[in-house]
Amino acid sequence: MPSAPAAARLSLNTATVKAQWTLAQAIEGCARHGIRGIAPWRDKIAEMGVKQAASAIKANGLEVSGLCRGGFFTAKDWRDDNRRAIEEAHAIGAQCLVLVVGGLPPESKDLAAARERVKEGIAAILPEARQAGVPLAIEPLHPMQAADRACINTLEQALDLCDALGEGIGVAVDVYHVWWDPKLEQQIRRAGGKRILAYHICDWLVPTRDLLNDRGMMGDGVIDLPRIRAWVEAAGYGGLHEVEIFSERVWWRRDADEVLAVCKERHRAT
Amino acid sequence: MPSAPAAARLSLNTATVKAQWTLAQAIEGCARHGIRGIAPWRDKIAEMGVKQAASAIKANGLEVSGLCRGGFFTAKDWRDDNRRAIEEAHAIGAQCLVLVVGGLPPESKDLAAARERVKEGIAAILPEARQAGVPLAIEPLHPMQAADRACINTLEQALDLCDALGEGIGVAVDVYHVWWDPKLEQQIRRAGGKRILAYHICDWLVPTRDLLNDRGMMGDGVIDLPRIRAWVEAAGYGGLHEVEIFSERVWWRRDADEVLAVCKERHRAT
Repeated sequence: MPSAPAAARLSLNTATVKAQWTLAQAIEGCARHGIRGIAPWRDKIAEMGVKQAASAIKANGLEVSGLCRGGFFTAKDWRDDNRRAIEEAHAIGAQCLVLVVGGLPPESKDLAAARERVKEGIAAILPEARQAGVPLAIEPLHPMQAADRACINTLEQALDLCDALGEGIGVAVDVYHVWWDPKLEQQIRRAGGKRILAYHICDWLVPTRDLLNDRGMMGDGVIDLPRIRAWVEAAGYGGLHEVEIFSERVWWRRDADEVLAVCKERHRAT
Repeated sequence: MPSAPAAARLSLNTATVKAQWTLAQAIEGCARHGIRGIAPWRDKIAEMGVKQAASAIKANGLEVSGLCRGGFFTAKDWRDDNRRAIEEAHAIGAQCLVLVVGGLPPESKDLAAARERVKEGIAAILPEARQAGVPLAIEPLHPMQAADRACINTLEQALDLCDALGEGIGVAVDVYHVWWDPKLEQQIRRAGGKRILAYHICDWLVPTRDLLNDRGMMGDGVIDLPRIRAWVEAAGYGGLHEVEIFSERVWWRRDADEVLAVCKERHRAT
């Protein structure tokens, strides 16, 4: 099979247009714009219903580059919530379930203990994920989100965890979270095509005015996207490029069809 | 549980009260509150004059835990600016010159090249620093400041640089920048008492509302300060504990004498 042109590699993470569109609208939008992949968030799936979402995705011929998200192993209901997430990922044919692992438990400052809990939590759900044929993708989050969202903060740390856990688990490489890492190239090479389950793109704005919702469109920031993509591809990843932009100030305020058009255009250069 | 730190270990980084006090006031304030050390920023020294600053510090019996700052090797005038910084550090008897190394040059996305430039810049000024008897302290900055302030973002990266550069250089360990690092304990041990030239304290607030100026007072955030201090001391560091709090919303708005009193009180528990 000839290698797909870059444009056909695009996938839309629904967070990018979450303020404007329901999941049904995002699915139709992807089809209308010739975007081949989609990565829904579970709140959007819950609104639409899993069965309806699965049918609409299938009917429109979309691939599901990932389901966002499982994880938060430091929360009380983590066990059931992750079980449901695996079921949903299976139902919509997601290529992976993205794990945002959770930060410090309330009142705790014990990061080492939180990390141990995460490891145990992933180990506990991994057999079910394997059985369902749903690869788990640990997403290392930016260190600025270590306290409140994820205590796995580097690719090296995530890969050490993968090595300890065995088959059926890998990483989601999101440029926003890892672009700064002096060991990025080395750890992408270490991960290889087997462990890299997803590749997320956006950009880092200077200045960044919010720790969560001020991500940039590809090309508007300082991340050397072609270089990181080359590393990821050289490592053996041949999957989709998922655009995930949390942008309260800019992209959530634009017409969603315009956002998709800009994503496509910018993706060609990255 | 490690024993409580001696009150006599405290040092005031003038940034903590920069909105309220001149350097002369900060020097008097330290003396009045029985705080043994001070770490001035160069803009405050420029206002007061180097000689006057040096005399006032000496007259009040203060130790200088560091001068902030040299670095910014990706800026145009880096050579002269660092030469002056070394002279000033020598003049005020600073125990080290803290290097905030600089981020990406304007219009650049080449982080690897910026890091190479930093290495060359430090190598260029190191002989003068050695001659002046001023140890250089590379301060790894939080990855969220990689683009605009410092492209050295982990202790491991800083120590690799130290190993490459030899004598007369070490690191400033600022808990705000490194608390999240899964390799923190390991790298503090690696650094040892020889390479750890400064220890800076404050806290990480949840939520953090600004990437630069929303640091917390010790005890108000999620950093396990006693644990990190124990690691630093076990590694062989026996120097001052420098409080550096950039806080536009809280501490820069309070009466500076009150800020110093709170610093002393909170330091006892950290």
